[in-house]
Amino acid sequence: MDGNPCAGPEGKALRPSLCLFACNAAGGSTRQATPAAVALEFIHNFSLIHDDIQDGDETRHHRPTLWATWGVPKALVAGNALRVVADTSLGRLAEEGVEPDRALAAIGLLTEAYLEMIEGQYLDLSYEGRPDIGMRDYLTMISLKTGALIRCSLNLGAAIGTRDPVTIKAFRDCGSSLGYVFQIRDDVLGVWGDAEATGKPVGDIRRKKNSFPVVYAMSQARGEDSQLLSGIYRKEELTDDDVASVLDIMERVNVKEYAHSLAEEHGARALEALSEVELAPSVQRELEELVDFLLVRQH
Amino acid sequence: MDGNPCAGPEGKALRPSLCLFACNAAGGSTRQATPAAVALEFIHNFSLIHDDIQDGDETRHHRPTLWATWGVPKALVAGNALRVVADTSLGRLAEEGVEPDRALAAIGLLTEAYLEMIEGQYLDLSYEGRPDIGMRDYLTMISLKTGALIRCSLNLGAAIGTRDPVTIKAFRDCGSSLGYVFQIRDDVLGVWGDAEATGKPVGDIRRKKNSFPVVYAMSQARGEDSQLLSGIYRKEELTDDDVASVLDIMERVNVKEYAHSLAEEHGARALEALSEVELAPSVQRELEELVDFLLVRQH
Repeated sequence: MDGNPCAGPEGKALRPSLCLFACNAAGGSTRQATPAAVALEFIHNFSLIHDDIQDGDETRHHRPTLWATWGVPKALVAGNALRVVADTSLGRLAEEGVEPDRALAAIGLLTEAYLEMIEGQYLDLSYEGRPDIGMRDYLTMISLKTGALIRCSLNLGAAIGTRDPVTIKAFRDCGSSLGYVFQIRDDVLGVWGDAEATGKPVGDIRRKKNSFPVVYAMSQARGEDSQLLSGIYRKEELTDDDVASVLDIMERVNVKEYAHSLAEEHGARALEALSEVELAPSVQRELEELVDFLLVRQH
Repeated sequence: MDGNPCAGPEGKALRPSLCLFACNAAGGSTRQATPAAVALEFIHNFSLIHDDIQDGDETRHHRPTLWATWGVPKALVAGNALRVVADTSLGRLAEEGVEPDRALAAIGLLTEAYLEMIEGQYLDLSYEGRPDIGMRDYLTMISLKTGALIRCSLNLGAAIGTRDPVTIKAFRDCGSSLGYVFQIRDDVLGVWGDAEATGKPVGDIRRKKNSFPVVYAMSQARGEDSQLLSGIYRKEELTDDDVASVLDIMERVNVKEYAHSLAEEHGARALEALSEVELAPSVQRELEELVDFLLVRQH
């Protein structure tokens, strides 16, 4: 709060790790990709700060969010500042020996991903309060809102590590699939995750978020269940009983099982995307471990 | 409001004009600088959208601001989207034949300017409610908050038009001075400008903005006037009588005259900065007309 480092659960640093991993796996050096990895983490944090303003969320990772502490004006500016620090970091690629044309291409990739993130945020906002959102809409939204930056992390790393377009495309495709794995699990944790472990206020249900479990339950519920769900989601505020009813319906349509199988399917696609790229055995193992981790992570 | 073009007073498009002007004056083609000019205008508009959220301003250019119409969440995202469109435009420099190393340098210039803008916004926020802000603090703040993008506009244009570092530096220095001319006049209009002409709700005084007239009056007022001013600025809300008293004090310490002479001084410096650069007579004339316009503009 007072500018001192704060001991607390840290983020996963997933995006920078993916970027460094891809650069390395594609034959480049970790050092060259470091400015991009730093930029990805800052862009991610910038987006969290603005998301918290947008959603009115007051806690994240067990701590008050920035706007809740400093107010919207300062959090807005702080978010923008992080975004510029990200750009500044990416501008240092050339200093690490990345040629100007590739540094430019890297900047273009991040800009593209960022535009997609915003498109996803826009869709997310536009879905609010709409009961007619289907699985296809949901998957399009998350492929943009969350998927774009994860895809970009692998794409950027690979594009710094090699000039071979086939390899770069393979990592990009792998990233697209990993994005789904990540977000589907995230949405499951948003409903059933342990508040202690995720650091999120449990209750994506109570907040009527258009997340995977709700969208899937809406699409699968029949008869009475379907009417009950629509009725609950038309309410301004949900009671404890409403939340319990929604959880019951989710159980009946096997949301958790379906989510896991869909995530597994995307995990398999992520591995498949890289099957034509020659990877060192240790790299292949790391990749498989990563997919497994994303499928079962608790926070 | 519904996405249709809206007939209304348009902005001045000052920053893109400065960029194209500098590129041309430095020997480049307008076409090459166009992606940068577009980026500057979008960055400027993005900053206005976020500024309006930050300041809670409900009208601008006689129209409701974006957040006042759509709410903070959507305005926040729309601002961020404009910022990315700006980046996308700047990424097209290479398509216009600007070499990769110069395109990278151009991106670096805009990033640098943008970081300075945020530093300025931060200072502006941190000055709020502080009666001890002096002219030097104020000038530092505006050189960052407004000056950085104006300086960048000339700097970017020149850097696309020529590779001569002396010429580029001259345009940059010219831009620094023009930034002061622009903002000092802006602050004068914020107090004495015709609401009809500026499209701003008159009353930077009522809103207790740390703008030039107030900061200068605070620094110059003596005895009773000084006590009266401090008393008024400690209030939560100012009455019509308070505003009238502040205006009286500003009259007594000749705020308007001092502002004009300081702006003139910076205008002269802007011309001086380019005195070593060989400019076509028509270009020299345009530059002088621009300075004159910025000194007396009514909106």
